[in-house]
Amino acid sequence: MKAIFISIGDELLIGQTVNTNAAWLGQECSRRGIRVERVIAISDDENEIKSELNNSIEKADLVLITGGLGPTKDDITKHTLVDYFETKLVRHEATLKQIESFFAARNRPMLEANTQQADLPESCTILPNPNGTAAGMWFEKNAAIVVSMPGVPYEMKAIMQDEVFPRLEERFQLHSLYHRTIMTQGIGESFLAEKIKFWENHVRESGLGLAYLPSPGQVKLRLTSREGKSRAGEIDLLFDQLEKDLPLYFYGRDEVTLKEVIGSLLRQNGQTLGTVESCTGGGLAAEIASVSGASEYFEGALTTYSNQLKHDLLSIPMEDLQRYGAVSREIAKAMAVYGREKLCVDWCVSTTGVAGPTGGTAETPLGTVFIAVASENEVTVRDFRFGDNRERNIQMTILSALNMLRCSIVGLTSD
Amino acid sequence: MKAIFISIGDELLIGQTVNTNAAWLGQECSRRGIRVERVIAISDDENEIKSELNNSIEKADLVLITGGLGPTKDDITKHTLVDYFETKLVRHEATLKQIESFFAARNRPMLEANTQQADLPESCTILPNPNGTAAGMWFEKNAAIVVSMPGVPYEMKAIMQDEVFPRLEERFQLHSLYHRTIMTQGIGESFLAEKIKFWENHVRESGLGLAYLPSPGQVKLRLTSREGKSRAGEIDLLFDQLEKDLPLYFYGRDEVTLKEVIGSLLRQNGQTLGTVESCTGGGLAAEIASVSGASEYFEGALTTYSNQLKHDLLSIPMEDLQRYGAVSREIAKAMAVYGREKLCVDWCVSTTGVAGPTGGTAETPLGTVFIAVASENEVTVRDFRFGDNRERNIQMTILSALNMLRCSIVGLTSD
Repeated sequence: MKAIFISIGDELLIGQTVNTNAAWLGQECSRRGIRVERVIAISDDENEIKSELNNSIEKADLVLITGGLGPTKDDITKHTLVDYFETKLVRHEATLKQIESFFAARNRPMLEANTQQADLPESCTILPNPNGTAAGMWFEKNAAIVVSMPGVPYEMKAIMQDEVFPRLEERFQLHSLYHRTIMTQGIGESFLAEKIKFWENHVRESGLGLAYLPSPGQVKLRLTSREGKSRAGEIDLLFDQLEKDLPLYFYGRDEVTLKEVIGSLLRQNGQTLGTVESCTGGGLAAEIASVSGASEYFEGALTTYSNQLKHDLLSIPMEDLQRYGAVSREIAKAMAVYGREKLCVDWCVSTTGVAGPTGGTAETPLGTVFIAVASENEVTVRDFRFGDNRERNIQMTILSALNMLRCSIVGLTSD
Repeated sequence: MKAIFISIGDELLIGQTVNTNAAWLGQECSRRGIRVERVIAISDDENEIKSELNNSIEKADLVLITGGLGPTKDDITKHTLVDYFETKLVRHEATLKQIESFFAARNRPMLEANTQQADLPESCTILPNPNGTAAGMWFEKNAAIVVSMPGVPYEMKAIMQDEVFPRLEERFQLHSLYHRTIMTQGIGESFLAEKIKFWENHVRESGLGLAYLPSPGQVKLRLTSREGKSRAGEIDLLFDQLEKDLPLYFYGRDEVTLKEVIGSLLRQNGQTLGTVESCTGGGLAAEIASVSGASEYFEGALTTYSNQLKHDLLSIPMEDLQRYGAVSREIAKAMAVYGREKLCVDWCVSTTGVAGPTGGTAETPLGTVFIAVASENEVTVRDFRFGDNRERNIQMTILSALNMLRCSIVGLTSD
């Protein structure tokens, strides 16, 4: 099965929006064995859309269109599709009800422009949009399937997952590429490759595909079998081996996140968690709290950004802050230990560092971060040196802190 | 001048890489008045590349190709271009020297594959790549310019800035398309359109382009003049009018963020800020702290996720928590007022809500959020009803809290 993605909207052409929809669709289609032939972004222009549709229907079995379905005048995708598929708009009662309840749930009045979003092409199958007011539309022409969806990423994703992929899977014998992933934190791509050289050779000889998928602070390994699920057991054994050999880095399988792994561990142990943050500003706490049900183990956090609050809230002596500096092994340790008491938690993680882009000194250069993990019996501190990009340093600190916490909870000593 | 971008590489199609190059090129071309007609991503396939070149040369004056110039075998762009432009490869001595010094500077040995990167098409103009080993190539055919560049973002950007744009500017009277944006928070796209109906008609009649660019919690308005900067004054007056009429929503111009606006206001006033968070878990503090230099006004934060910590850290009476419930107007207010004292700050913002996806009740349904802003003299509380998506509710709460704070600082009363 071959697919072409058409993204509609001037904001993509002038670079105001990065086309992350295409990347997500590419990932989801590929792992179902749908081959992506091309990705196109064009403007909200009727002739452009029609000519691209002609071209794509000829070349592909599946054409996924995103964008241009909003209630305002500059959105013309729906009317263009009506024209292209020679149909007309009719009021779709189920969609109207859904739009009405969408507004009712938000206590907001409905405008005429919103009501009109329930007028949909007669000849298409309507794909409900649980997260918004623009429904998906499924057309068929010359053996090609054309699906139009809103451009808002989480609306589009829900329609793909709930409506489009199930229909495709039901109707077509999708290629049975079988993917499994295993997640690492704290080791770069080339160092990882060096450490698992023999394992990698063995994997490649066995005919499985291996891909390194790096993102800041993490590398995901993906194994692909062309023989479908039949090799699932073998892949599990291969993953077992990695987790046994390199437990400090490998933290979970199949898209699990560190924050979820920590949630499961704490829930199992009946333990509680808090954080005390400086350079991450509350981002570590927010990451932990973003897991649904985190209130079972996450009690709360202190962001002691200023030295004054490090003193007032944690009772760290001002002279210690002056002697060691706020970005130091000693203060990271004090933050975690005192924080654990103030927050009355079993585990407390602290962060302090120079996130940048300014503020480095000779002793604590830009990107220096200390992370401490305190439990009843022990406190572990590690120092890191990230780069000069503030956003990235904060993200790296959050991930490193979560992995240090994971290692501490399961009784591993960080290197 | 019309441009088409062609990005080459399977990693873009299967979604392993997000096409940020296209977004950057789109921005840079647009602000020079080069109209971007389409953005295409295709695979490393000779026939695909040639067919797309034929198509693009017909439609556009400028074709910018990125990717497929690496030293490995799967990179075929250079050989395809040699074939397409009916030329041959010749050793380019200046490029060879540049590659040699590139490797020497990094203390790395040079491989034969790297030497071959100095073999370049005879008929093109070579564009030096200061950051890598794949040079840029400038071809001309049928009045169209075709430029091929490496896909590594910072290599491509340097070649565009140092070589491509200066040549284009020298040779062509570039049209000066002029974009300006104004930012809103707290009002949906269709409500905004309703409120500014007359303004919008006036804008459209005056020949300026208007686009609504929504993202969760925010709508950006973009005005475009085809007559370049000559209409800048007029656009400023149009924006002034919006800010005067709808000051609760319009918070700034030209890509400024709410957290930056708040930073400037607090810095001007010499005031300090803290947060006390429940449903946002520390995310509001992290957002505020993500601005470089935030330590000038941001003191710190408390994440009181559990009721126990709301009591222990803020001294909110347990009986109040039981009587009103943690998600209530009264508790939001108490969090902001007591938090202001505990953190010793001029402004304190609190959040409490049911982020979901579970936990709603008849009285406080899923998505209910209370936000309070306390200053020395006043405390404002507002309630919100967001949806059932946890991540989005948290994000909407953070943005709404920032906008409420902004309104309070500048002395506006929220509706």
